[in-house]
Amino acid sequence: MAGRKNNRAEPCPVARGVDVVGERWALLIVRDAFDGVRRFGDFQRSLGMARNILADRLRMLVEAGILASQPASDGSAYQEYVLTAKGEDLFQVIVALRRWGERHLFAPGEAHSVLVRRDTGRAVADLALRTADGEELSAADTAVKKVEGL
Amino acid sequence: MAGRKNNRAEPCPVARGVDVVGERWALLIVRDAFDGVRRFGDFQRSLGMARNILADRLRMLVEAGILASQPASDGSAYQEYVLTAKGEDLFQVIVALRRWGERHLFAPGEAHSVLVRRDTGRAVADLALRTADGEELSAADTAVKKVEGL
Repeated sequence: MAGRKNNRAEPCPVARGVDVVGERWALLIVRDAFDGVRRFGDFQRSLGMARNILADRLRMLVEAGILASQPASDGSAYQEYVLTAKGEDLFQVIVALRRWGERHLFAPGEAHSVLVRRDTGRAVADLALRTADGEELSAADTAVKKVEGL
Repeated sequence: MAGRKNNRAEPCPVARGVDVVGERWALLIVRDAFDGVRRFGDFQRSLGMARNILADRLRMLVEAGILASQPASDGSAYQEYVLTAKGEDLFQVIVALRRWGERHLFAPGEAHSVLVRRDTGRAVADLALRTADGEELSAADTAVKKVEGL
């Protein structure tokens, strides 16, 4: 659950990441934030979640440094929640989840939202994990080197 | 929670993906499966989770088609849980979580496990989301095109 754990003995970055964002609502709030949602009422309408749970998850995401709470940009009394640099950096996680969902959780031809290029409005063809050299890597190409506890 | 939801009205692939794997234990079981863990007892030792919860999550991951249960490869009486093609395709999700964790959840110099190339044993420098043309995409380059319900 977002922000609840502070597992400083855990040497696996996947596990630490999961401890912060491995929770349904936290991930969907971050997804909405990428889509430009900023206000409590708009998150609530988008996600259809209970107000107390939404307030809890927003507070955790702020405590985790993923969202920042700030006064509304239009000068109104609303608070706005915006992604920090740490939150923006979850883009790959959201896109990877989207890609997997598109490939495996929809029937052929079934309608779903798509990721498009902002400049052209055209769908992003596909995404691949590549090294800085441009080489595409699969699970079979990699292994995890365990690190002993400190 | 893995496999519990079957939200066929949800047009967002991120949300459907989150409904299947947006749960701490499910993601950590998949991570361990990528690291070669196959047996109930080995998952339990690695994750330190209660047997009934592990059994529940393994069953959900099998029902979701992410893991397959099969007789042990050594002919013993054990069952083994191996990633299906659908499960293998979660590689990008796990790597994206790892990368985010490495960048944001560890102090400088703090020990953590690393992703290495299987052939050379050397750390994978960095990973980027690129289109098939090799262009790197950021959140600012993309938008989500909503699709109305059917």
